[in-house]
Amino acid sequence: MPEPDTLDAVVSLTKRRGFIFPSAELYGGFRSAYDFGPLGVLLLRKIREAWWSYMVRERREVVGLEASILTPPAIWRASGHLEHFTDPLVDCRSCHERWRADQIDGVCPKCGSRDLTPARAFNLMFRTFVGPVEGEGAEAYLRPETAQGMFVDAQSVARAMRLRPPFGIAQIGKSFRNEITPGNFVFRTREFEQMEMEYFVHPSVAAEAHDFWIAERLRWYQELGLEGDWLRLREHDADELSHYSSRTVDIEFRFPWGYGELEGIANRTDFDLRAHAAASGEDLSVLDPVTEERYYPSTIEPAGGVTRAAMAFLLAAYHVDEVNGESRTVLRLSPHLAPYTVAVLPLSRKPALVELAHEIFADLATIVDVDYDETQSIGRRYRRQDEIGTPWCVTVDFDSLEDRAVTVRDRDTLEQVRIPVADLVAHVRERLAATPRPRARTLTFHQR
Amino acid sequence: MPEPDTLDAVVSLTKRRGFIFPSAELYGGFRSAYDFGPLGVLLLRKIREAWWSYMVRERREVVGLEASILTPPAIWRASGHLEHFTDPLVDCRSCHERWRADQIDGVCPKCGSRDLTPARAFNLMFRTFVGPVEGEGAEAYLRPETAQGMFVDAQSVARAMRLRPPFGIAQIGKSFRNEITPGNFVFRTREFEQMEMEYFVHPSVAAEAHDFWIAERLRWYQELGLEGDWLRLREHDADELSHYSSRTVDIEFRFPWGYGELEGIANRTDFDLRAHAAASGEDLSVLDPVTEERYYPSTIEPAGGVTRAAMAFLLAAYHVDEVNGESRTVLRLSPHLAPYTVAVLPLSRKPALVELAHEIFADLATIVDVDYDETQSIGRRYRRQDEIGTPWCVTVDFDSLEDRAVTVRDRDTLEQVRIPVADLVAHVRERLAATPRPRARTLTFHQR
Repeated sequence: MPEPDTLDAVVSLTKRRGFIFPSAELYGGFRSAYDFGPLGVLLLRKIREAWWSYMVRERREVVGLEASILTPPAIWRASGHLEHFTDPLVDCRSCHERWRADQIDGVCPKCGSRDLTPARAFNLMFRTFVGPVEGEGAEAYLRPETAQGMFVDAQSVARAMRLRPPFGIAQIGKSFRNEITPGNFVFRTREFEQMEMEYFVHPSVAAEAHDFWIAERLRWYQELGLEGDWLRLREHDADELSHYSSRTVDIEFRFPWGYGELEGIANRTDFDLRAHAAASGEDLSVLDPVTEERYYPSTIEPAGGVTRAAMAFLLAAYHVDEVNGESRTVLRLSPHLAPYTVAVLPLSRKPALVELAHEIFADLATIVDVDYDETQSIGRRYRRQDEIGTPWCVTVDFDSLEDRAVTVRDRDTLEQVRIPVADLVAHVRERLAATPRPRARTLTFHQR
Repeated sequence: MPEPDTLDAVVSLTKRRGFIFPSAELYGGFRSAYDFGPLGVLLLRKIREAWWSYMVRERREVVGLEASILTPPAIWRASGHLEHFTDPLVDCRSCHERWRADQIDGVCPKCGSRDLTPARAFNLMFRTFVGPVEGEGAEAYLRPETAQGMFVDAQSVARAMRLRPPFGIAQIGKSFRNEITPGNFVFRTREFEQMEMEYFVHPSVAAEAHDFWIAERLRWYQELGLEGDWLRLREHDADELSHYSSRTVDIEFRFPWGYGELEGIANRTDFDLRAHAAASGEDLSVLDPVTEERYYPSTIEPAGGVTRAAMAFLLAAYHVDEVNGESRTVLRLSPHLAPYTVAVLPLSRKPALVELAHEIFADLATIVDVDYDETQSIGRRYRRQDEIGTPWCVTVDFDSLEDRAVTVRDRDTLEQVRIPVADLVAHVRERLAATPRPRARTLTFHQR
């Protein structure tokens, strides 16, 4: 159970062990931004891979896209973001601080003055200028969501890939929002990474498709380790729905400060395709080859945060238990998410041991991410690997030179088995394959 | 051999088949920006994976990093980019167009006027503002290179991962440069993706390490398909060296318009670490545990472009040959780079065939990217797969229902073999494993 103490412990662990660093720390940090260190990158890569294989690779009707981050105003005018993607801001007339109107109580939290300006809409998109002249025609925005790329390119993608509804376009990538109050570690940052899919269906099956994707996405998180009461579903109230949504259900994680959104699954209706059709003058409807009906598909959007998922998996994995009477910190990450799948640990620095360990590293590194550590006592090295969640430690000992076998230690059961070096790659492959992971289910809603 | 015609043919193919689309095409495009469609994403993913496994996973002393794109001015002041990362611009006083001074001949190319302003330095970094107030303290830049992340975080990474020189920090990610003259398709775009490593060594072995990485990087491109005279090495002249470099060697590709840079391998000396130490007041030197010498490591930087690599692999793979007296277009991409490794093609839409084909798709999709196509004649489907570079087509025919076997057709040899369905995953895995790919070599330079 994550308590406030757990947050501190996890933040400290992630910094100490190279998962997450404050960005530009050399210069005093930079406005709640974070960099992902070596282990953080490995964790992010595994989350992306688990999402991609489940959402794209295993489905015949889903394809990928990587659209530009720098985007023209026309897109955001059509999508409604220029108008609606705002927070209400007030200025204090006494001390000139700026606040989110919905987060203060009519009094400047800095100087206590009640002399505040009326609230103005502050757009959350970052703006920059493209080309050598700054000015209206040169404006560009950093995308605040990857989704619009899928809508703007939907027709090109469908044509090139010969797709008709139901089909999905999926994208993993960075988005940017000029949040007034970032915080809670990497929960809310101005630069963040999304994993989104737009799934286009005939409007008559949109509600069923929505339910399908809510269940499918929930299962993905659960089978990667967020079981029990870590997650809950929360239906958006009518007054909190985004301007494009008819219904949104959030998958929320039990963060130390309460439940918070991991992923939103929205029924965006045909809002976006119609909006882009109207703004561009292009006909973005599709033709049903059987009924010859022309229609605008509805879109179901499961939109998750890679960064938030990383944080949730870390919090849920964090445990302190006892081994041989000693306390140990252990990240019980799914072996499919652990930064390193295996660590190779030669018992001493004796050249023959090190040489064999290097060979084993090279073999294993052809199939999984492998750590290599030849420093300090084996007990301390096990603790270090437990702390970063490595499921299996391979110890190369003096007997290994005789019997060409090594000891494989399990992070969770602590069980040790002796495995011939020649079988090690197959052994690791089998253990990984034996670890459950989410697999795509076929659509259950009725096609027309 | 890529001729200008080849460029047109490849640009057309990549758009028609869903590799690369002009960005925001619905709105008339956006300033030479491009989006990567379904097949483009698969190609990019494979290039990244080939780079990551070769540069990071297979090396004990190299780790990853993903630093922020939004970065504070302090970093770019220290690195010299605020001062030096500029192009010379002139304005035409007659028609007010703006030009790169080094690309025009003293005459405005638009109106012919010779009345031009003196050249001014135009900084190529995109600027934006973070937080609710625009102004000096809120400035941020979109990083123009991923490299500075590795320098700014070098000490944190080394400490967390217990690394001492020689070691490397590697990063794949987007960078942004406000190019005045983007062009040549995706060769020069304002938003692009880099794959960079900073390799820290004792200055006494920097020259050797530089040579090692030049050879290692050249081999990577060659073994992925850019053999023969597709590539050349070009040494930078003293007057074109970047402000941080003592020596740079480019790996150049024979583009249709001439040789152009794919990757630069620079000896950045200790310029960056010393610059950040001076600017931040932190001591970024390292201690040699044997000699007890404190020193600033030199850095060797192999900096490649993911986007450019994609373009080079596509151009080199493009062939038109003849099969059974008919012309066919074929992308002879390495099977390690081809968007889809396998295509599954049921000979007809007979439900029993389709069902078996779906099962085969699901099995293969657990190990590789698989296309699925049940439309049109089998001959046309083979042509389509040839055109997108799919190495192996699996045809499910009527006999398959009897003998539980399928035909596997090879893109290059056109050879067809009959394989039991139960052996298909292993068969594909073996064929892929039998295809050469670059493997990391151990450092050959002398450690001190």
